[in-house]
Amino acid sequence: MPREDLKIVVIGGVAAGASCAARARRLSEKVSITIVERGPDVSFANCGLPYHIGGEIASRDVLSIHTPQSLSAMLGLEVRTNTEAVEIDRAAKRVRVRKTGTEEGEWLSYDKLLLAPGASPLRPPLPGIDDPRIHTLRNLQDMDAIKAAAAKARKAVVVGAGFIGLEMAEQFRHLGLDVSLVELQPQLLPQLDADMTGQLLRELRQNGVDVHLGSGIEGFASAGDSLQCRLSGGVSIEADIVVLSIGVRPDSSLAAAAGLTLGKRGHIVVNEFMQTSDPDIYAAGDAVESFDRITGRPSAVPLGGPANRQGRLAACHMMDPESARPYPGSIGTAVVRAFGVTCAMTGWSEKRLKSEAIAYKAVTVKDNHHASYYPGATPITLRVIWEEGTGRILGAQASGQEGVDKRIDVIATAIAAGMCIEDLSNLELCYAPPFGSAKDVVNLAGLAAENLVDGLLTQVNELPKDALAQVIDVRPAKLFQSAPRPNATSIPMDCLRARMGELDKSRPVVTVCALGKTSYFAARVLNQNGFSAKSLAAGV
Amino acid sequence: MPREDLKIVVIGGVAAGASCAARARRLSEKVSITIVERGPDVSFANCGLPYHIGGEIASRDVLSIHTPQSLSAMLGLEVRTNTEAVEIDRAAKRVRVRKTGTEEGEWLSYDKLLLAPGASPLRPPLPGIDDPRIHTLRNLQDMDAIKAAAAKARKAVVVGAGFIGLEMAEQFRHLGLDVSLVELQPQLLPQLDADMTGQLLRELRQNGVDVHLGSGIEGFASAGDSLQCRLSGGVSIEADIVVLSIGVRPDSSLAAAAGLTLGKRGHIVVNEFMQTSDPDIYAAGDAVESFDRITGRPSAVPLGGPANRQGRLAACHMMDPESARPYPGSIGTAVVRAFGVTCAMTGWSEKRLKSEAIAYKAVTVKDNHHASYYPGATPITLRVIWEEGTGRILGAQASGQEGVDKRIDVIATAIAAGMCIEDLSNLELCYAPPFGSAKDVVNLAGLAAENLVDGLLTQVNELPKDALAQVIDVRPAKLFQSAPRPNATSIPMDCLRARMGELDKSRPVVTVCALGKTSYFAARVLNQNGFSAKSLAAGV
Repeated sequence: MPREDLKIVVIGGVAAGASCAARARRLSEKVSITIVERGPDVSFANCGLPYHIGGEIASRDVLSIHTPQSLSAMLGLEVRTNTEAVEIDRAAKRVRVRKTGTEEGEWLSYDKLLLAPGASPLRPPLPGIDDPRIHTLRNLQDMDAIKAAAAKARKAVVVGAGFIGLEMAEQFRHLGLDVSLVELQPQLLPQLDADMTGQLLRELRQNGVDVHLGSGIEGFASAGDSLQCRLSGGVSIEADIVVLSIGVRPDSSLAAAAGLTLGKRGHIVVNEFMQTSDPDIYAAGDAVESFDRITGRPSAVPLGGPANRQGRLAACHMMDPESARPYPGSIGTAVVRAFGVTCAMTGWSEKRLKSEAIAYKAVTVKDNHHASYYPGATPITLRVIWEEGTGRILGAQASGQEGVDKRIDVIATAIAAGMCIEDLSNLELCYAPPFGSAKDVVNLAGLAAENLVDGLLTQVNELPKDALAQVIDVRPAKLFQSAPRPNATSIPMDCLRARMGELDKSRPVVTVCALGKTSYFAARVLNQNGFSAKSLAAGV
Repeated sequence: MPREDLKIVVIGGVAAGASCAARARRLSEKVSITIVERGPDVSFANCGLPYHIGGEIASRDVLSIHTPQSLSAMLGLEVRTNTEAVEIDRAAKRVRVRKTGTEEGEWLSYDKLLLAPGASPLRPPLPGIDDPRIHTLRNLQDMDAIKAAAAKARKAVVVGAGFIGLEMAEQFRHLGLDVSLVELQPQLLPQLDADMTGQLLRELRQNGVDVHLGSGIEGFASAGDSLQCRLSGGVSIEADIVVLSIGVRPDSSLAAAAGLTLGKRGHIVVNEFMQTSDPDIYAAGDAVESFDRITGRPSAVPLGGPANRQGRLAACHMMDPESARPYPGSIGTAVVRAFGVTCAMTGWSEKRLKSEAIAYKAVTVKDNHHASYYPGATPITLRVIWEEGTGRILGAQASGQEGVDKRIDVIATAIAAGMCIEDLSNLELCYAPPFGSAKDVVNLAGLAAENLVDGLLTQVNELPKDALAQVIDVRPAKLFQSAPRPNATSIPMDCLRARMGELDKSRPVVTVCALGKTSYFAARVLNQNGFSAKSLAAGV
């Protein structure tokens, strides 16, 4: 039975905080709930901020899911905005809060406290960093400032090509600005494996974004009306507005001062019921370090989905610890659209597995997002990664124009269920020509993995640099003629058996086609006839 | 190691047959493979046929994935089209085949035989059924005939409102025909629960389809230039063209004559390696009875996905029984689009569970397909059904405009993994405003189920007929005013606590909103204050 005599104080009134308060109220009309929020707004749609800046979301109002008044009326609780929590007295179970700009404040006593302070955008101490033209994006006020500045700007520089950076670059282009995107890593979306980001890079460039990869930002200098952004390597870019989206840091100073356990990167450490090292103090959302659902290792996933679920779970455990269902850990599923291309991922990348020395295998496949013969089919490239030995799926990444989110959602579900790579072969997914294929690209990944494990499929992810290798394009001759591949010989699949005598058995062969399917068939034929052939994954 | 000295004969050259042949060839260049196909075509896209009739797929050629010649060249095998298998001599391991229109034929010996004969559209012995204006749709020739007839027709009648019937009704409307759709059951899509098909029915009617539910077809009579279709109840509809899509019957006569075990409905019974009761004779595709993945009960799922996988598996087992991975059974995932509405399902419906007396629970939720504040959000209604006691997910159905296939694919994956309903709460699905919500409608189903199990959520699927019940619309007052609900009182959620004194505690209350979320919150408030309140599932 839920406890109804509790006094709950929630620090932070956005995703995790609002979820906790709402759930607590659903469990009991009697419990006392107070939300303390540093800013003027509660429960706003922070993921929508870039889209209002770019004008895709025309009305600012729709981003305010609740005003403090409506949240208070809806849930029957107290909302204190523009109010900061400055000190926790754990022994007395009270938290000191004060209105912004005032000194003293007052103590609020609690039976259960939730910390949902979120995370702040990083703003490194670079020369010129305090220039007012350099923005970060966290709340509605940041959004308003960027939107107002963008209206007068001609040139925008976005620093950081993660999810928010890509959204901002796209939205600034919607506004007609000249946009430069600067990324320290030699690839877009550093969360993904580099070779999965090529389509996105081409799309950004085709849409007029000036992309600088492998470029650190070294400082800013005012130059007349504009700002000079100095990049590593001596390049300098002019900007009227700069948005920094290079990551976030958990707002854990209150927790730290209260002596709660923090993780290596400063997050508030919680257990599977969102309790901090003080069992009456819970934490949820972007500021916490929970654990990875796949490996059990410590993990912080600053995303809206986990924040909502963690907040809700904290309320369940505060109110009725016996019946609360434990948090299963985070997987880290994310998606971003830039212009016509979508990239998404779930779980672990090859890059991250390598860095933590976890043994894995991976397969990369490509196929159309629905039946090829139905108009509008566009290809999806899908990589699935699994644990060597057990076959347990560890992660996936996909890139394409349509249906990318669907495939990653399916694999995120498979990961949550602890499925193995071969289980993907037999998934029965929706199939009608406008929606999918009899063998969906997710099924293909499972089948290709079986073939890889069985030694039938030998795949390379890029064309050989080696001049010795014979590159054979097995597409129909007319496709080859319309888009010939340099250094490749055209031997269409349907005459491969007849013409394989033209090839040298003593030299390696790489077979190539549009999607990586026919080239696999061709490699099978060749390998059974004494050649050493590999298929180029995901085709052209 | 695969056996390379096999002689494989495949009867039927479309989905299952072509998959088997292709896989066998991939496993060995040496094995002998002969495909025997009754019709003139192999490996054609049968799911695309309606879309070529309606002109959405402009080119007929794209439906022929392979010609007999290209399939033969691609796979290095023999293709015999217009050739029927007429007799199996199991003792001598040979099958007699003959060219269409000839008498004698010849015997082909086999080591392993695959039967992939498919299923024929039903054509019941009704008065007038032999009129040449009455069509069924199975192959390219049927398609050509319907397309030619439709070009001269003004009025079409489609009999049967399953997946193909709906596609045909839609495509005939694309061609500008007057379309009547006749269904014996009192609902569209008899595979689904009736109340999940309401949106689809409205969409068909809004798009000018004349829908006759609960109407059997009793016969046909020529009347001048047109055909009168007589329905039960005395109604008669005029047609220039009729398409029957009332189901299929497995083409199992060859198997029956050979003494192979058939199921209750005439399917060829196979084991988990697609072997019939004769271990050297395999069967796959629409003609087979395999087993249900969820319950293990016998099951026949005539869909393209299972057909492809079964054909492939048969080849694996023929070639190397030691390493073949068993078929896990079929779930039955299907999707159909009609105009702007998509309906999809996976696993068991309530209706089917009731008919087999399996104890279950179900929850119905509704939410937008992506963040409500991002332009273009449209609602999805999702029902998820689970086994009472264990919580194991048994099935799901969804209806909406966008993203319906994605949600059903996620749940089909959860079913394949044996997940429980509560596992849906914590799935981490792709979330960015254009793609989803921090709490996706799939998560909501899991959360609502938890609430149902915990006794927090009390749901009704329709408004009470009972005049005693108090129906309370908790939407904001301006929404209620713009679309008032008869017999409902408007008490917006944010003043419910203040105004609940207006309600009579001695009478039941049903709360209503747009999506079924706020009404749940309202029911919680009321039930904690001594009322007996239930929430209308999935809102208006």
